[in-house]
Amino acid sequence: MSVDLSAVGKQLPATQFTYTERDVMLYALGVGAGTDELQFTYERDLKVLPTFGVIPAFPALAALGTAMSVNPMMVLHGEQRIELHASLPTYGTLTTTPTIRAIYDKGKGALLVVDAETRDTKGVLLCTNTFSAFARGEGGFGGDRGPSGPKNVPPERAPDTVVEMVTLPQQALLYRLSGDMNPLHADPDFAKMGGYDRPILHGLCSFGHVGRAVLRSYCGNDPRKLKALEVRFAGVVFPGETIVTEMWKVGDGEVILQAKAKERGEVTISFASATLAS
Amino acid sequence: MSVDLSAVGKQLPATQFTYTERDVMLYALGVGAGTDELQFTYERDLKVLPTFGVIPAFPALAALGTAMSVNPMMVLHGEQRIELHASLPTYGTLTTTPTIRAIYDKGKGALLVVDAETRDTKGVLLCTNTFSAFARGEGGFGGDRGPSGPKNVPPERAPDTVVEMVTLPQQALLYRLSGDMNPLHADPDFAKMGGYDRPILHGLCSFGHVGRAVLRSYCGNDPRKLKALEVRFAGVVFPGETIVTEMWKVGDGEVILQAKAKERGEVTISFASATLAS
Repeated sequence: MSVDLSAVGKQLPATQFTYTERDVMLYALGVGAGTDELQFTYERDLKVLPTFGVIPAFPALAALGTAMSVNPMMVLHGEQRIELHASLPTYGTLTTTPTIRAIYDKGKGALLVVDAETRDTKGVLLCTNTFSAFARGEGGFGGDRGPSGPKNVPPERAPDTVVEMVTLPQQALLYRLSGDMNPLHADPDFAKMGGYDRPILHGLCSFGHVGRAVLRSYCGNDPRKLKALEVRFAGVVFPGETIVTEMWKVGDGEVILQAKAKERGEVTISFASATLAS
Repeated sequence: MSVDLSAVGKQLPATQFTYTERDVMLYALGVGAGTDELQFTYERDLKVLPTFGVIPAFPALAALGTAMSVNPMMVLHGEQRIELHASLPTYGTLTTTPTIRAIYDKGKGALLVVDAETRDTKGVLLCTNTFSAFARGEGGFGGDRGPSGPKNVPPERAPDTVVEMVTLPQQALLYRLSGDMNPLHADPDFAKMGGYDRPILHGLCSFGHVGRAVLRSYCGNDPRKLKALEVRFAGVVFPGETIVTEMWKVGDGEVILQAKAKERGEVTISFASATLAS
């Protein structure tokens, strides 16, 4: 990549994503839902997990990588936000339009921020994803550092609610069938090249687990009640580990949260928040 | 159904099945393969589990049900045999032609035996499935009882090899995404109607586990070395239970086997055999 600040504000080519109920159920199983959450994993009265909204937008992110000539091995998925404007349909064809919102100069790398709007065939806006990706080695071009300082800081008290979810040893193999086939999450050799002892779970798979924890704890498992979820990916989860989501209800309709890999105590998702429907 | 013996020998309409590598990997995860069997669950050097051959043939079985006006709630999958003539491709379009081979009068019900030949687009025969289905309440029409007496009887000694595989609580939810969406395997209400406390695992999902046990024990996990697998479905497995496959090597290239649900000791697959490549 060579940083081209004139790209900021540019709209990238739209991508289409066609899916069926089967894909919706496969995604739910991929982020750990099972027999206790049949509304997400079985077609009778099927509902769509709000975090499924990252899936139709994912090809847009891949297109960005190509457009910017970024080496995918050098890119870290730093932050993710999804905002839900309407319930996601259980099947259909959706169109996603990505826009490069910002390119920040973080010194050791460049931070790319992309908004992606996903609409149905009638043009109804369903969700907006904001992907923040850190391109290692691409900083130092004299650009704006961008906003800094903490946000979504947990209050100084024990969490109000804690949810533990055990992931499967094959969780990443299952999750990747929803679209992110990066071998880093399946292939021990690629994992070693990336600096890991073994394949790691997708950040967006942890994101899905955390979304389920919020849905269960604060939304009565009703997907319409989750309006937004934003996270920072602070560390990795290895498949088979237990994701512990700690949540604090702060103010009206806002939940601050973080998640840890129980077995190692590592914080994997930090400075995160969920917005609930009023 | 009204038993129509003139149907014997009749060829049913062919069905087409198009699949991708993703479907092959999803099937492997559905029958319990994971990170230890990456050749079946990850696209690099992907191989197809021989028991995947039941999947393209499954729509043919459904077509049979329709052709014979059988009430699916009254039908039990009694036996299954698959014979492999060539390696299954990792993606493609296959055509399956089912033929009604026999209709036997078992008194309390009718036993339907259907052969289904599956070929690739060049007409190369890849596998032949034989499905035996028991239609409760449809016997007593004065027909032939068909062959009886035991076959594939285990020798009177401890098994030569025993393989234990723990199924996931959500194993049936995962397996059904490969095509058999019968709600008996997902929906607690349907399970109760069928006389079970909770949803049961698909017989063909157990079949896949047993096939993996044979592959691992006698084929060095090389799918080309398994030529045939035949089983009788003797009892149910509940998702989450452990399938214990007991195997006896008898004669040249033949393995007798049976499987139990470890937690209840119930025999789930009996009088079964595998044929190995010489």
